Amino acid sequence: MKFEVGQKASFTKTISESDVYLFAGITGDFNPVHINAVAAEKSLFKKRVVHGALTSSLISTVLGTILPGNGTIYLEQNSKYVAPAYINDTLTAQVEIIKIEENKAMLGTYVFNQSGEKIMVGTAKVKLPVS
Amino acid sequence: MKFEVGQKASFTKTISESDVYLFAGITGDFNPVHINAVAAEKSLFKKRVVHGALTSSLISTVLGTILPGNGTIYLEQNSKYVAPAYINDTLTAQVEIIKIEENKAMLGTYVFNQSGEKIMVGTAKVKLPVS
Repeated sequence: MKFEVGQKASFTKTISESDVYLFAGITGDFNPVHINAVAAEKSLFKKRVVHGALTSSLISTVLGTILPGNGTIYLEQNSKYVAPAYINDTLTAQVEIIKIEENKAMLGTYVFNQSGEKIMVGTAKVKLPVS
Repeated sequence: MKFEVGQKASFTKTISESDVYLFAGITGDFNPVHINAVAAEKSLFKKRVVHGALTSSLISTVLGTILPGNGTIYLEQNSKYVAPAYINDTLTAQVEIIKIEENKAMLGTYVFNQSGEKIMVGTAKVKLPVS
């Protein structure tokens, strides 16, 4: 595959309660705001939120499986969490190639919810697959 | 809790095969290098590697549950993946407060393997819990 600046790809997933609970178990991040509905209700967020780290992990999915795809080596991810994502939100992770230098690419990375609201914005750096 | 520059905390977990497989299912990141032992053997890495996004998710665990702990709001994570982590590696995520400004803190964030080798290095920005 030939890679060019401007190429885009995305991946969409509804983040279920089980996704959030399994993520908590895998990582050990049992912050009450993710797994305690009563505590979350009393928090700034009013209900249980998806781990930011889970939200930005969806970027890795696009990079490793779609664009640039199989063989990509993830070098760097910068993520700003700009709005909360809630359990049962349908999140779309989008990446766009913004720069290519030799065998490396810089990508703009975004996660949106079902209303088109930006949840995460950032950049990634990858080593491109050897064709 | 009073927060000060220089405070450190860490969390250690052996990353099992099931952690990596569940993480693949949750995120959709079925990059063969994580879940295909035969393909991974032929890759640069020679065996199945842990998702970088899972590695850096351990930072969120420290931030949300230890330091600064419950009530922390994750604003930003910058992660450089500097070496691979393999299934069954015992990873230690470490954070250190490097700057405090009003109600926000900047932290140095690191993940090491059982040999003390640095796997991930970066920084995080959080909103501190209201005491």
